[in-house]
Amino acid sequence: MAQKPSIPKGTRDFGPAEMARRNYIFDTIRSVYALYGFRQIETPSMENLSTLMGKYGEEGDKLLFKILDSGDFLRGIDPSAFCEGGTPKLAACLCEKGLRYDLTVPFARYVVQHREELTLPFRRFQIQPVWRADRPQKGRYREFYQCDADVVGSDSLLNEVELMQIIDEVFRRFGIRVCIKINNRKILTGIAEMIGQADKIVDITVAIDKLDKIGLDAVNAELAEDGIPADAIEKLQPIIKLCGTNEEKIATMREVLKDSEIGLKGIDEVEYVLRQYVLVTASSLEERTEGGSLLELDLTLARGLNYYTGCIFEVKALDVEIGSITGGGRYDNLTGIFGMPGLSGVGISFGADRIYDVLNQLDLYPKEVSTATQLLFVNFGEAEASYALPAVAACRRAGIRAEIYPDAAKMKKQMQYANAREIPFVALAGETEMAAGTFTLKNMQTGEQTAVTTEQLIAAVLA
Amino acid sequence: MAQKPSIPKGTRDFGPAEMARRNYIFDTIRSVYALYGFRQIETPSMENLSTLMGKYGEEGDKLLFKILDSGDFLRGIDPSAFCEGGTPKLAACLCEKGLRYDLTVPFARYVVQHREELTLPFRRFQIQPVWRADRPQKGRYREFYQCDADVVGSDSLLNEVELMQIIDEVFRRFGIRVCIKINNRKILTGIAEMIGQADKIVDITVAIDKLDKIGLDAVNAELAEDGIPADAIEKLQPIIKLCGTNEEKIATMREVLKDSEIGLKGIDEVEYVLRQYVLVTASSLEERTEGGSLLELDLTLARGLNYYTGCIFEVKALDVEIGSITGGGRYDNLTGIFGMPGLSGVGISFGADRIYDVLNQLDLYPKEVSTATQLLFVNFGEAEASYALPAVAACRRAGIRAEIYPDAAKMKKQMQYANAREIPFVALAGETEMAAGTFTLKNMQTGEQTAVTTEQLIAAVLA
Repeated sequence: MAQKPSIPKGTRDFGPAEMARRNYIFDTIRSVYALYGFRQIETPSMENLSTLMGKYGEEGDKLLFKILDSGDFLRGIDPSAFCEGGTPKLAACLCEKGLRYDLTVPFARYVVQHREELTLPFRRFQIQPVWRADRPQKGRYREFYQCDADVVGSDSLLNEVELMQIIDEVFRRFGIRVCIKINNRKILTGIAEMIGQADKIVDITVAIDKLDKIGLDAVNAELAEDGIPADAIEKLQPIIKLCGTNEEKIATMREVLKDSEIGLKGIDEVEYVLRQYVLVTASSLEERTEGGSLLELDLTLARGLNYYTGCIFEVKALDVEIGSITGGGRYDNLTGIFGMPGLSGVGISFGADRIYDVLNQLDLYPKEVSTATQLLFVNFGEAEASYALPAVAACRRAGIRAEIYPDAAKMKKQMQYANAREIPFVALAGETEMAAGTFTLKNMQTGEQTAVTTEQLIAAVLA
Repeated sequence: MAQKPSIPKGTRDFGPAEMARRNYIFDTIRSVYALYGFRQIETPSMENLSTLMGKYGEEGDKLLFKILDSGDFLRGIDPSAFCEGGTPKLAACLCEKGLRYDLTVPFARYVVQHREELTLPFRRFQIQPVWRADRPQKGRYREFYQCDADVVGSDSLLNEVELMQIIDEVFRRFGIRVCIKINNRKILTGIAEMIGQADKIVDITVAIDKLDKIGLDAVNAELAEDGIPADAIEKLQPIIKLCGTNEEKIATMREVLKDSEIGLKGIDEVEYVLRQYVLVTASSLEERTEGGSLLELDLTLARGLNYYTGCIFEVKALDVEIGSITGGGRYDNLTGIFGMPGLSGVGISFGADRIYDVLNQLDLYPKEVSTATQLLFVNFGEAEASYALPAVAACRRAGIRAEIYPDAAKMKKQMQYANAREIPFVALAGETEMAAGTFTLKNMQTGEQTAVTTEQLIAAVLA
């Protein structure tokens, strides 16, 4: 046989068992989003490169998958130009479209393009794949799904509260115990101001963000490397090492940042969001708290991203060692890049691939997730098949996922098929059953066999 | 404001209302497929070009979207070579991946690649977008969904019967009255043999396929142009003009093709499939037949495709003028292209975009399709919002899709929002309600207002 065909590196096939689990994840997220008044949209896989380029930084531009123009893509290009300017310039000549890199930029484009049709505030969710020409590695793929929800056109912190409720509800439905970490970009700005390093805020947040991974000493070393003076680093220490309850942290930070207007505003925001969230979900918090912190103000949380301007969220699973499984925050000028300034937005994104890993590790899938066949009718030949077909149809009308083996193959082969497919019930009808108007129903787990009418058959499988 | 951003031609954004309808279509097809024991898979959007090229004919190769290799895609290419060999050769140097053109070739690739894990016969379904660099026009898009189901590894005609049952069930659920047309490639081969033009079968079927569009004279002219002699064209006439019930057609064809072994085999197959199908769905046929033919042996049906080897299906909507809304057939060597010969397959594909158009034209969507917000809580300020939040949460726990307006905007603006979003119920709580522990519930259709507790509110919205 010829060499096995393969798929591009960093991409995946999903078989039936994986699909059932993935659909469970997407369906759960989708129904919670809908419960909170979010409405689904979809955007094309391809966007114009002019929409995508320059939105994800220089590194992001390189990771965009570009689509070769169709037809005579060389038309009008001077061949000698191919070597000048290098690959980026040539790519711009050969390609005018690229694959979606995330769901945020297409959403911003959507809002601006359709602004006349939209009623603000607009709450949308979107569950679609994105593509990145990243180096593939364990847990990092070139095609993967994002599950985003955003509200644009409202400054209210109630949106933050509701997004946290959504996070809580989704993970409650999954049965995954999580900690929702919250921070606020304004607090970080206040800190940078306080130590007189306002222009170094990005460096500071990036360094602080690494605390968990590399430890305090390395963070301090990195801050020094970034050109933060020793006295400023010294001032940062109590903040980086801050601990206690959320209330204690807030009280401490309110004191530390008492001279920073923006810092205090950030603290006010976090305090309001935490208070409202606890108010709404009080009962659920009690239910789930078992010593672990479920809701944590975490000043080391910076999400490494520059466009957040207010609250920042990140969710960690309590019972599995894995990175953030959900994240989000507020950004104040999402649509400005497309010429529509002044629209504030806040959003979250569930990491479906990591949630899949967590559910697998904890074995948390409910039984009903499977959409596999429940009942197989054995096929003994044309007459027997004709006898069985109306019963197969009746089972399906009753909602039973049923199959008849298509070929009159050997009994052994058909039973092997039932076993390999893990089909729990098998129905047989030969001469005896046909004469009696019945089927023999075999329970594949217990081996028990009973003579049943079609109605009894349906009742037994549904039981 | 800057120029509005746009999307690539031939692609579409789907807003919330369209998404609800599209999800209804996909969910319906998905659940019927599952009921018949088909299991869902997904394959990557990108395949290696070596998997895709040469599988769709020369024209198809041109319509593949190719993805520019990432990184230094010029490495190792002699610039002077760019002009030699033209664009196809250069494309092959610059690109090693392409976007999926249909779901059939990736499925064949999947079966061969995963053959050790699969239990045959393998019934899979797949609902994913495909991409074609076609010239965009009304109803033809560069990105569109296919909804395929196939069985591989079984020659049994029961598979054909079940696929027809699936078609019947799906359109019954949609409420679309259809005619399922059936033909068999072997009958067509028999016809070509009978008139001594076995090598001209492709030309003959392509010409016959145009009968509906261009009429008998033009078909005859085309046959002549194709080099079919006049006497052979003469012999074809009774076949092309064949009419009557399916039984009459079968009887006539059995006579006409009495000397063609393969032709008679084709007739046997069609007769068996029709008989079994009628047996299983008898009641439903009676229900739906109203003069129109629901099941039609149509010898002009050739699907213009060369790879079908047995039964061929096509579905037409009875009440809307539109092309085929579903099609399929049997092919005997799907996986041979990847070095795994001898596996027979049969499949169907629902045309989601056309079904969407039909459902829209006939206004057949059930009410429950909408996943829009059912209840809006008006926001009068921080204290009132805090009072409302637990009630919002209680409504959601009861399964009501509920929102609280995030900002304490003017009453008029909030009511305009409710109207624009077509939210049927609005709940208000100011000082009076807060003192009484109630809400005022407004029915937006009748204008009726009632004072209710949270429990009564939930009951009223769910009623």
